[in-house]
Amino acid sequence: MEIKQYMNQLGRQARIASRLVAAADTGVKNRALLAIATAVDARRDEILAANAKDVAAGEASGLDAALLDRLALNAAGIAGIIEGLTQVAALADPVGAITDLNYRPSGIQVGKMRVPLGVIGIIYESRPNVTVEAASLCLKSGNAAILRGGSEAIHSNQALAACIREGLVAAGLPEHAVQVLETTDRAAVGELITMPEFVDVVVPRGGKGLIERISRDATVTVIKHLDGICHVYIDDAADADKALAIAVNAKTHRYGTCNTMETLLIAESRAEELLPSIADALDAKGVELRGCPRTRQILMGAVEASDEDWGTEYLAAILSIKVVADVNEAMDHIARYSSAHTESIVTENYTTGRRFLREVDSSSVMINASTRFADGFEYGLGAEIGISTDKIHARGPVGLEGLTSQKYVVLGDGHIRN
Amino acid sequence: MEIKQYMNQLGRQARIASRLVAAADTGVKNRALLAIATAVDARRDEILAANAKDVAAGEASGLDAALLDRLALNAAGIAGIIEGLTQVAALADPVGAITDLNYRPSGIQVGKMRVPLGVIGIIYESRPNVTVEAASLCLKSGNAAILRGGSEAIHSNQALAACIREGLVAAGLPEHAVQVLETTDRAAVGELITMPEFVDVVVPRGGKGLIERISRDATVTVIKHLDGICHVYIDDAADADKALAIAVNAKTHRYGTCNTMETLLIAESRAEELLPSIADALDAKGVELRGCPRTRQILMGAVEASDEDWGTEYLAAILSIKVVADVNEAMDHIARYSSAHTESIVTENYTTGRRFLREVDSSSVMINASTRFADGFEYGLGAEIGISTDKIHARGPVGLEGLTSQKYVVLGDGHIRN
Repeated sequence: MEIKQYMNQLGRQARIASRLVAAADTGVKNRALLAIATAVDARRDEILAANAKDVAAGEASGLDAALLDRLALNAAGIAGIIEGLTQVAALADPVGAITDLNYRPSGIQVGKMRVPLGVIGIIYESRPNVTVEAASLCLKSGNAAILRGGSEAIHSNQALAACIREGLVAAGLPEHAVQVLETTDRAAVGELITMPEFVDVVVPRGGKGLIERISRDATVTVIKHLDGICHVYIDDAADADKALAIAVNAKTHRYGTCNTMETLLIAESRAEELLPSIADALDAKGVELRGCPRTRQILMGAVEASDEDWGTEYLAAILSIKVVADVNEAMDHIARYSSAHTESIVTENYTTGRRFLREVDSSSVMINASTRFADGFEYGLGAEIGISTDKIHARGPVGLEGLTSQKYVVLGDGHIRN
Repeated sequence: MEIKQYMNQLGRQARIASRLVAAADTGVKNRALLAIATAVDARRDEILAANAKDVAAGEASGLDAALLDRLALNAAGIAGIIEGLTQVAALADPVGAITDLNYRPSGIQVGKMRVPLGVIGIIYESRPNVTVEAASLCLKSGNAAILRGGSEAIHSNQALAACIREGLVAAGLPEHAVQVLETTDRAAVGELITMPEFVDVVVPRGGKGLIERISRDATVTVIKHLDGICHVYIDDAADADKALAIAVNAKTHRYGTCNTMETLLIAESRAEELLPSIADALDAKGVELRGCPRTRQILMGAVEASDEDWGTEYLAAILSIKVVADVNEAMDHIARYSSAHTESIVTENYTTGRRFLREVDSSSVMINASTRFADGFEYGLGAEIGISTDKIHARGPVGLEGLTSQKYVVLGDGHIRN
């Protein structure tokens, strides 16, 4: 009950603040972002001390090494936070942009204006730099934010929250424009995702379990990113060098990212020619190969892929490989097993490439490029709050524009309907 | 259980058909639309006979006069259906349009392609012409559709469904691209809105009760339209003639539409001058006035408005009136009571108009125009499937574009991430 009251209070405050942030000039928002950077710079000792407390508590409670690594902040981490704020301040402000303003036969002008969503709730895990990153993207896009970081980062997040408040107030913006939860009580998340009167959208950032739980229980709209089961299809008409380069890069550039290739599809006509050299290159990097029966005729070292493999996001040095008859079978496989994140075709054939681009229903569809390019920075969004695999509102990397929508604006001169 | 199996079958069929419709050429989709029109024309006796059966059953079961009126089809109704199909065929096809295709520093080109949502479920009430209208909009936007009309229109809808199938097949499209439920079992709706594996979006069209129920129970995304509590604010700097014309038109052009004004706000500085003539004009049309205390000092005939009045969509010849200090109080009132559908300001002041346009958070915001313009046809969308008062994906009138989203497309030449 106490948590409910607390969250309701935060929600009410955020709703009020959201109207002021939505109306704020670009210059004011940028000044706030730079003032937050100044505050982070000035309070770095405080932040590092708070972080050290979190890390010590994490060690004492037996947090695993990967989580501890993501939790820990150092001088470079602080510099990264400051740099991120400067970059977001430099991005173009999407709010208020009017497009397609045209005269209609009635004489009115009708157009669309880009507007903030309102109040955004963000739920994330251990990395404390997300606190500032999420705050900066919400603020620049004219939204109020309620942030709920991992309980293991509570002291770091509170220290960063103090900097955010300081920056907001210095620029004349309401301190409730960004509120970081002061509690680690898990019930707070349950409240946050079920108060549509105060929160317009929730963005969960973290493991699949967290996102599934939130999607299931939320009554507020969720912008979510589940798996990244990405495919590269090497077509009959693929260039051999490009096929090798893209397959190796898409799998091995980084193993733990959502835009990493998990399944390689290859046309039967090219399998015997190309699979051995691809396998050699992957083998040299220690990638385990799991193949369909035809693959295993060509690659003796590959283990048998189960049906489960085709639907698994390994996030590891493992690749499943399937030989397909042609682009039709490749697209059928993708339609069945892909998580609709990113798929790429390697082909020199104009018609096949054009078809793949239109017919594959994923948030990013590529020709002759590594799936690793599916990223807000690579796409020129400047920053991203996540990669949406949903079908409506925002698909793919979600930047500032993904945190806004459009309303209609109508300009008349006393016009009435006949 | 039988209903569950039936709906699952429809869902599976729709999912398969959706890939074919999404890839269909514009010409093929247009031929299907015109072939449906031809079928409706050829089968008009059949359709009218089926409709007569529905009307007779409705009369026997004591359906009220307004519902019977919406249910009944005549020659003009058939002509309207045919005309609607021809109009949708003539609309530009949004699918596949690529925008913002730009080179990035890495050398890849990144752009956005407009794509169908997939499978759309539409739940509507008595009017049988909605069956063809909804089918045509879904088809043109490259989506498969599952339609669930009112049980009182079941025979009419089945007759129209036969025409739709005939047209689809004539154009070489899968007959499952549009499926009209053959059952009137209410459990089917419950299934339709809870099978995200087969249905991507649900659009409920009907009364508030229906929409609230569906929004509450759906696990599929809902594009919804709840109330239209629309405001006109007459500012200090309003032109008197425009204020009178817009107030009268926004209230009395039609009473039962969602874009009709329900509350008039007027600046104190203009209330004594303008309210009497507005009241006279409304009085002549039989509109009941309910006012705040200050309004009632000026308009003796107005009854007292309760707090409930400010939050009521009358859909009737009733208007609530409130005198406010200025645009700030007007915007505060709107933020509190509006359903975020449509609001209009009457002003000649540049700065006030500019502020209102940006700061009012409704799906349509107008200057010097009647709220009655908030409509897909008036906005040039060609047709609308509804008016969304949601904040994300689509706001305001939803036409073909509102039934699509955008994916990223990336063109490379063997590019890999460094």
